[in-house]
Amino acid sequence: MELWYTEKQTENHGITTKITETLHSEKSEFQQIDIIQTKQFGRMLVLDGMVMTTDVDEFVYHEMIAHVALNTHPNPKKVLVVGGGDGGAIREIVKHESVEQAVLAEIDGRVIEACKTHFPNIAKELSGNPRVSVQVMDGVKHIHENKGAYDVIMVDSTEPVGPAVGLFEKGFYQGIYDALKPDGIMVAQTESPWFNRDLIKRVFRDLKSIFPITRLYTVSIPTYPSGLWSFTIASKQYDPLEVDPDTIKDLDTKYYSPELHHAVFKLPKFVQELTRD
Amino acid sequence: MELWYTEKQTENHGITTKITETLHSEKSEFQQIDIIQTKQFGRMLVLDGMVMTTDVDEFVYHEMIAHVALNTHPNPKKVLVVGGGDGGAIREIVKHESVEQAVLAEIDGRVIEACKTHFPNIAKELSGNPRVSVQVMDGVKHIHENKGAYDVIMVDSTEPVGPAVGLFEKGFYQGIYDALKPDGIMVAQTESPWFNRDLIKRVFRDLKSIFPITRLYTVSIPTYPSGLWSFTIASKQYDPLEVDPDTIKDLDTKYYSPELHHAVFKLPKFVQELTRD
Repeated sequence: MELWYTEKQTENHGITTKITETLHSEKSEFQQIDIIQTKQFGRMLVLDGMVMTTDVDEFVYHEMIAHVALNTHPNPKKVLVVGGGDGGAIREIVKHESVEQAVLAEIDGRVIEACKTHFPNIAKELSGNPRVSVQVMDGVKHIHENKGAYDVIMVDSTEPVGPAVGLFEKGFYQGIYDALKPDGIMVAQTESPWFNRDLIKRVFRDLKSIFPITRLYTVSIPTYPSGLWSFTIASKQYDPLEVDPDTIKDLDTKYYSPELHHAVFKLPKFVQELTRD
Repeated sequence: MELWYTEKQTENHGITTKITETLHSEKSEFQQIDIIQTKQFGRMLVLDGMVMTTDVDEFVYHEMIAHVALNTHPNPKKVLVVGGGDGGAIREIVKHESVEQAVLAEIDGRVIEACKTHFPNIAKELSGNPRVSVQVMDGVKHIHENKGAYDVIMVDSTEPVGPAVGLFEKGFYQGIYDALKPDGIMVAQTESPWFNRDLIKRVFRDLKSIFPITRLYTVSIPTYPSGLWSFTIASKQYDPLEVDPDTIKDLDTKYYSPELHHAVFKLPKFVQELTRD
């Protein structure tokens, strides 16, 4: 018997992928958590029916949410990830020697546990690293309790439905602003420039009204809707475009490079227009 | 009744998209030609079960196969498209005022006719433009009969199966070299850096052994396998990286821009490594 998992990424379009096994399936307090073994992409984490990460392409999302902001800040010491229970962003953050403390604020402890079991390579820094603090809690609450605490904050959320809906709201971004130090930087995943144009425009406009510097960049993630994904970076002082590529340390990466740091901000015209008023 | 069209892009993975109507279906001398009306991407051209183009995202492929090479050559007058029966590449080529003659060598006249009927916006320059010459013939034969004739040659082929298999072979690239003027440039679509890594490496190596300058670039095409697509450009004299963005005329485009001309060559590490020996 052939088993195929199909995700309707929109009402009218999706991906379908061959699977050999369901490794994990549970309904947590917050969402449906499934982990399946696929033929094309290795293991795949699916939350509420949406692909979150896979063995084969996880490096793109995790490197690219982490290294652009961390290499824009000249000396990031304290870093927060809101969401990101798989641990991939944390794994990339601790590659930066300047980082003294990387905090994970994930609302669903069951995601963390399932990923520790089934994605050991992604979750590997969630246990036993003294620089990493894993806190099972609401990220919104955490930022309100930690004013002026962080150099960099990353919003590593699911889609803007279910538990993550508050993570795309202007009030939340203001809370992040307040939780950052006076020269802090935030970055958030902001969906597909093909399928989520209104959301990207709104988030960009909201962040631009709070932070002096706001920039959009894109990456290729084949298991995400349309294969093109966006991140929005917002900064109090440092501009990602003013980083000298020659000063960026060469990290152990498969996607990010000092050259790419600048190139990802050069957007196709139909994406660039999402950043205009 | 809901109708969904599913393309297995590899043995183990594909896209599935909702359709409302089949507009055209025929078996030509060379391949199966289907045109369907989708909900997400407008009309979709499918050859031998593989998505070739859609109303919504066609601009990416057609702009990006045409404008990088045409803006690298300082004065392209005579341009050949091998394949490309939908006419999208031709439409972009004639936006360049320097071009005196744009020749389409498409082996399957039925593709041209079906696209004229169902994709009027894509095929619009295939009729009535005195600068455009449409020739229903084997592109391989055409290049062997036109030595030293062209400034730019574009290989706008289907996947390397069926009628297009010869268009990915080293002998064909040597034929293109010979059909180019002493300062000519070629560009070919070269599949997905996620799914077709061996093909990209081989083509890059073959072109590098023939042309002094060979470069790889990528673009986002949501209806193509993995959503990330590559083009390989090979040039006798002009380097696409040495073009001054300030000298590039602003064309009526939705993806290409003078800024993007350079950025598309900055590759993620896992793609960059395909261009190393």
